[in-house]
Amino acid sequence: MENNDSFNGMSKDTFRQAVVNTLERRLFYIPSFKIYGGVAGFYDYGPPGCAIKSNVLAFWRQHFVLEEDMLEVDCPCITPEVVFKASGHVDKFTDLMVKDEKTGTCFRADHLLENHCNDTLEKDLSISSEKAAELKHILSVVGDLSAEQLGAKIKEYGIVAPDTKNPLSDPYPFNLMFATSIGPTGMSSGYMRPETAQGIFANFKDLYYYNGNKLPFAAAQIGQAFRNEISPRQGLLRVREFTLAEIEHFVDPDDKSHPKYSEVSDLEFLMLTSVDQETPDKAAKRLCLGDAVSEGIVNNQTLAYFIGRVYLFLTRLGIDEKRLRFRQHRPKEIAHYAADCWDAEIDSSYGWIECVGIADRSAYDLRAHTDKSGVALVAQEKFAEPKEVEKLVITPNKKELGLAFKGDQKLVTESLEAMNGKEAMEMKATLESNGEVDFEVCKLQKMVTIKKNMLSISKDKKREHQNIYTLPSKAGSPSKAVNEQLNVFRFPPLVAPIKCTVFPLVQKEQYEEVAKRISRALTAVGISNKKDVTGTSIGKRYARTDELGVPFAVTVDSTTSVTIRERDSRDQIRVNVDEVATVVKDVSEGRTTWADILQRYPAHTSASADADE
Amino acid sequence: MENNDSFNGMSKDTFRQAVVNTLERRLFYIPSFKIYGGVAGFYDYGPPGCAIKSNVLAFWRQHFVLEEDMLEVDCPCITPEVVFKASGHVDKFTDLMVKDEKTGTCFRADHLLENHCNDTLEKDLSISSEKAAELKHILSVVGDLSAEQLGAKIKEYGIVAPDTKNPLSDPYPFNLMFATSIGPTGMSSGYMRPETAQGIFANFKDLYYYNGNKLPFAAAQIGQAFRNEISPRQGLLRVREFTLAEIEHFVDPDDKSHPKYSEVSDLEFLMLTSVDQETPDKAAKRLCLGDAVSEGIVNNQTLAYFIGRVYLFLTRLGIDEKRLRFRQHRPKEIAHYAADCWDAEIDSSYGWIECVGIADRSAYDLRAHTDKSGVALVAQEKFAEPKEVEKLVITPNKKELGLAFKGDQKLVTESLEAMNGKEAMEMKATLESNGEVDFEVCKLQKMVTIKKNMLSISKDKKREHQNIYTLPSKAGSPSKAVNEQLNVFRFPPLVAPIKCTVFPLVQKEQYEEVAKRISRALTAVGISNKKDVTGTSIGKRYARTDELGVPFAVTVDSTTSVTIRERDSRDQIRVNVDEVATVVKDVSEGRTTWADILQRYPAHTSASADADE
Repeated sequence: MENNDSFNGMSKDTFRQAVVNTLERRLFYIPSFKIYGGVAGFYDYGPPGCAIKSNVLAFWRQHFVLEEDMLEVDCPCITPEVVFKASGHVDKFTDLMVKDEKTGTCFRADHLLENHCNDTLEKDLSISSEKAAELKHILSVVGDLSAEQLGAKIKEYGIVAPDTKNPLSDPYPFNLMFATSIGPTGMSSGYMRPETAQGIFANFKDLYYYNGNKLPFAAAQIGQAFRNEISPRQGLLRVREFTLAEIEHFVDPDDKSHPKYSEVSDLEFLMLTSVDQETPDKAAKRLCLGDAVSEGIVNNQTLAYFIGRVYLFLTRLGIDEKRLRFRQHRPKEIAHYAADCWDAEIDSSYGWIECVGIADRSAYDLRAHTDKSGVALVAQEKFAEPKEVEKLVITPNKKELGLAFKGDQKLVTESLEAMNGKEAMEMKATLESNGEVDFEVCKLQKMVTIKKNMLSISKDKKREHQNIYTLPSKAGSPSKAVNEQLNVFRFPPLVAPIKCTVFPLVQKEQYEEVAKRISRALTAVGISNKKDVTGTSIGKRYARTDELGVPFAVTVDSTTSVTIRERDSRDQIRVNVDEVATVVKDVSEGRTTWADILQRYPAHTSASADADE
Repeated sequence: MENNDSFNGMSKDTFRQAVVNTLERRLFYIPSFKIYGGVAGFYDYGPPGCAIKSNVLAFWRQHFVLEEDMLEVDCPCITPEVVFKASGHVDKFTDLMVKDEKTGTCFRADHLLENHCNDTLEKDLSISSEKAAELKHILSVVGDLSAEQLGAKIKEYGIVAPDTKNPLSDPYPFNLMFATSIGPTGMSSGYMRPETAQGIFANFKDLYYYNGNKLPFAAAQIGQAFRNEISPRQGLLRVREFTLAEIEHFVDPDDKSHPKYSEVSDLEFLMLTSVDQETPDKAAKRLCLGDAVSEGIVNNQTLAYFIGRVYLFLTRLGIDEKRLRFRQHRPKEIAHYAADCWDAEIDSSYGWIECVGIADRSAYDLRAHTDKSGVALVAQEKFAEPKEVEKLVITPNKKELGLAFKGDQKLVTESLEAMNGKEAMEMKATLESNGEVDFEVCKLQKMVTIKKNMLSISKDKKREHQNIYTLPSKAGSPSKAVNEQLNVFRFPPLVAPIKCTVFPLVQKEQYEEVAKRISRALTAVGISNKKDVTGTSIGKRYARTDELGVPFAVTVDSTTSVTIRERDSRDQIRVNVDEVATVVKDVSEGRTTWADILQRYPAHTSASADADE
């Protein structure tokens, strides 16, 4: 696939519709509650969808949790309000909404403006080049506009409600969390979590202890997340409930090197830097990850290590590296507490879609929960050697500082936080010996007395954050015409919902017995498989198995050895009946490659089937 | 463990407290939102808890979904109100609650009555034997009492609010579903699902089609379920959010034989029949499953097949078969639409606790969704041979019948449903040729005209329903004294959160290199493992690994071969470094047994370690 604008030789829309049709017909997914007319933004996975999800999650666990010795946790979806007050979600997890002033129907303000710009650019051929440039500019910044700016543009362009053409309200924030009430009294508010990370932060102290009170360590969580989207769209991409897999890696803020950095530093892939995004339509460049770090493009080794691991994860899942890029957040979109942030984006029929976010978030979340709960979520170590001083950072105890300094607290805190390593270490030493220390607050132009309980020495942490919500569907050969059955699912064996089909060449009892035996042997070693004993032609059966993306097909054409066919190459080999399960298992789980298998087993010829055929 | 009343040589309460302490200290689970004081009924799993959950679910998938070719689905937790209106949950999924009349604190009415009876029996030595018998009787029926009966007993015994001693309100039903609102308008009500089964029923039509329009088939779902318990208790047993694994097996109601029945019919285990429960304190009897079916104790082969599969599942997970029984529902507790129902119960420190429910539910749910949605959730087949007539059942179209017969609809419907196979087949034939048929409704004492659109021929289905919410903790040797570290977790390798620890015998660089190599090899083949390179004594390291329930420990005491120790037998063998990963993988995944391994490898002697030690 060299041409990024064509998919399987079709337009993006045609391609998408063809994929959606196949996915729904084969029950990869199903609109939820379909018999009741469905509810926007909710989808069920059917049997092949479940198998893919389970394979992807198992691989995620293997690739991240097991390989990196991460600490996995599993927290409830229902979360009391106080947690999301602390994290800021109650106040800030909002989208801007407008209402149809007559019917009350709700829309996302930015979507309406976006649609207006796109429609005008596409359909109104009379607009001036200045106007076109303006609309393009708006499209590039629409995510950054405030309620006032969005409202002004909606008024200026005369945008009305899509179906009714009624006037629209001014934009106002709508909180995207689903609310509920915990317990029988109705007095205790809760929310369905919009992300899984807060559960990790709340457990920081126990996890740090579990890790032997040592940094760095990473914690991971896989679970459901819920967002009450104003207008769900783009199929499975913007839904109201989804499975999220997140990692929080806690690291010393003064030493962001990574011991396994050298394992990823030679990787090369498409990167789109923050600077390059200032030039419209500038394409991502192929960069070496190690160079990006040494040139200061990627902030540090640990961040780079996770970018590299995500690249390996996605490409092993079968994402085409030509359709995968890492895009750096621009200064305007990056959160104020984050040092650097990169999204892994996949080029889909909807354009480039974020599927993983990787951010260095500083200690923002731990500080927020420390403030709210009064439990210090900090990593403390005893320092034997003064040379370790540069590893220290200061965490002020805002409660004690507030009691002591009232209105001056903010400036005192800022001055404390602004100390360099040497100053901090001297203060620590004095506090340990005297219990208090004099400290000059420049902005107040005076000395204050700092007591031991007013601050602590803490280690920082960084945050990795991963959302899996793209299916690894992959475009097939571009020259192929549109068939009724679309064979686009070149799932690698690792991901394929069914790894192997087994069918007798002809309906014959001995062959059916052998097929059953092979199927049982595959099941016993954990390889999902499907028997096809319908008497239809072998061609049709291959077509059926290809449509589901099954990588291997076993045809029983003798009672001693059988044919194994590989989906993409269509190579066929002869394997003894008793070896089939082992061969398919090894190649499915990546212990051997199909190329190796080809070397070891003879090719299938018509003569190799039973002579009595 | 012969004595069912002692656990590890301690009283049930002492044993439980010791287990809970170890579980919390090792982060098997953690009260959720602990830094904010926690919320009753919510627990996080820490790293070993997550690993066990993931192992149990993987084995559940292998044992049920893969082995039985079930269709897995994955539906959202958030569900629109209409679904639970149809299923009856909005009206009936309630517990009876009483309120402290002054503080408003809520309690489950049956719990208060239960506690009162237990306390009186235990502490009031002055009560008469009649009174004691009465209280025991109430304890045995407390789950069946109506709001009025519960209220009357609470008044009679003068039961008041536990802490405040304030008077209590009359009992009234409280719906256990968490409510929320879907979409931005606030107009669309929804609930967090209290079970996952309704998602399967709603997809029946698509799944039946996916299965080639053939019965029988089974669908399975693993996912979160939510119940807003009035007063959560018993640790992980009665929580407000939990993972549920459910199977719905759809079968021809006139042919409940099962092709694989013979694979389970010879199994013998403890069963407690409905009849035996009429005698208080009667113990479960060891019965052969096949005999139970032929004697009419278990309703049919398909139900028996699933009971047998659940028995195999639980015992393979490490549940002691002496502490496992299958209890039949008594006539009073069985749902009105169910033919037979059995709970798998495990003897825990809380007494016998239901952990799996297996019920023949008839077509109740499909009928309910058919009525509400207007989409016929029925399995229809074309019958070539009249001898198949006895397989037919009638599904009336209540809408059409209502339009035609108004107030008589109920009696007409009942008469239609009461037809035997022969009558039904004759009606079917006449409807197909004439489009309508005369039909006598006895209770109305008149003939009515039935049209083709008023009913359809349907196949029935049965339901299997499984909840996993017990941890497979297993009591250790009864004679062992209480240690500070309690070694109760004899997880079978299949379930163990960590399968293998690896440690160098002494801190020596070559040994640490070998330990790393073995650990990497284990990770590569998917075996979770932990290195312990702390220099503490080998005894302490074994104790640590035993406490986590790790089945195998590899001690590196040479650079060529190492010692593998099995947790329960404490047998030690010598294995070449390069073979370790394969050996541990094979025995962990059940491809070989420890007994076989013992045959194949030499026992460890002190001479087998490096000579240069």
